[in-house]
Amino acid sequence: MAAISSFARHGKKIVAIGRNYAEHIKELSNTTPKEPFFFLKPTTTYLPSGGKVEIPNGILCHHEVELGLVIGKRGRDISQANADTHIAGYALAVDMTARNLQEQVKSKGLPWSAAKGFDTFTPIGSFIPKSDVKDPHDLRLWLKINGAFKQNGTTSDMIFRIPRLIEHISSIMTLEEGDLVLTGTPAGVGPINAGDVIECALSDGEGKNLAKLSFGVVDREGGYQFKP
Amino acid sequence: MAAISSFARHGKKIVAIGRNYAEHIKELSNTTPKEPFFFLKPTTTYLPSGGKVEIPNGILCHHEVELGLVIGKRGRDISQANADTHIAGYALAVDMTARNLQEQVKSKGLPWSAAKGFDTFTPIGSFIPKSDVKDPHDLRLWLKINGAFKQNGTTSDMIFRIPRLIEHISSIMTLEEGDLVLTGTPAGVGPINAGDVIECALSDGEGKNLAKLSFGVVDREGGYQFKP
Ligand SMILES: [Mg+2]
Ligand SMILES: [Mg+2]
Ligand SMILES: [Mg+2]
Repeated sequence: MAAISSFARHGKKIVAIGRNYAEHIKELSNTTPKEPFFFLKPTTTYLPSGGKVEIPNGILCHHEVELGLVIGKRGRDISQANADTHIAGYALAVDMTARNLQEQVKSKGLPWSAAKGFDTFTPIGSFIPKSDVKDPHDLRLWLKINGAFKQNGTTSDMIFRIPRLIEHISSIMTLEEGDLVLTGTPAGVGPINAGDVIECALSDGEGKNLAKLSFGVVDREGGYQFKP
Repeated sequence: MAAISSFARHGKKIVAIGRNYAEHIKELSNTTPKEPFFFLKPTTTYLPSGGKVEIPNGILCHHEVELGLVIGKRGRDISQANADTHIAGYALAVDMTARNLQEQVKSKGLPWSAAKGFDTFTPIGSFIPKSDVKDPHDLRLWLKINGAFKQNGTTSDMIFRIPRLIEHISSIMTLEEGDLVLTGTPAGVGPINAGDVIECALSDGEGKNLAKLSFGVVDREGGYQFKP
């Protein structure tokens, strides 16, 4: 396998946890899950920092800034005690969501795959080696639109912590080197629009910057047209 | 990229179409979609012919035999007229489904990813070069459990035909070399149980065999436990 720092080019899957921060669950009037749940995003959603998210026609596009776990070692039925040995590092990411399409499919009991899976829907920062992070449950992550804070949370607020997430996912599907696990978003999600400038950052408990991620927004030319 | 015949080892995603055969929609009391819809399965679900599907604890596991399209060329916004040039060949596959978990998540508006994504949940046959298939909309596919026919359908009954599926998916997410598109299942889906022997086949309009696929079934040791 290629260098783990190029996980976004070589990894095969993105497993994204839903509803892992209490304040975010409230803001969307969702219920708190009894066990973690997740959805898949295709790796064709990756957008490197400096790129432009494309808003599909008719789509209300919401930002969700999240801590990503970069898997370094294949495993299944990974215990919570062993979870850390399967993590090679971290990455700052945004789980872009077609909110109106998502609401439509939720009400019909249909899959979330399209609502989460449009091209450019996972802006992704650089690989952060595990050795740079003392405590992944004590990180601040924020997102600004045009200079104004929209999300500003801490990973200490996760409902299900990282070892539990790895245990849960790997009890269902094998995790492979280069896979990315998105750990859920704190409160403050909301729309982005063409012309917006989005900046995100991840810092540790002592305020040291670990990652920055920024991108623009354009309207998608052609492609899917959402019909409410 | 590696040889296309090893798509199951190197491909990054499986895009699976739901409800594409009228009789299957009826048997599950579902509604007919106005446009195609799909979900993602991770490539860790692949099971080569001769392997054993593992039934997770507490899961009612249903077989869905399907025609797979193996993507040979990257593309987005692929027109129906160009769709065929993006197909390298075909494969016979089974879209294993955790039906009781799927019913639960459907009723809650949650993602299908776990219900469709357990390890071993995509038994997959050998690559069939496109040149071996005269008309992909005139293929017979069947599935037997312990020698008894359970599914026996024809791809001529697809609601949305192959060019429309490729157009739809690629209007949302880029298709890449080695990706697999599952085109939906005909009627006759039902449970499999530990100890069953499953055989599937794909043949053309003249009755010539194109693919065979067979696998066993065991109960999964450890792993996820479904709680209704
Ligand atoms: Mg889904
Ligand atoms: Mg999210
Ligand atoms: Mg299916």
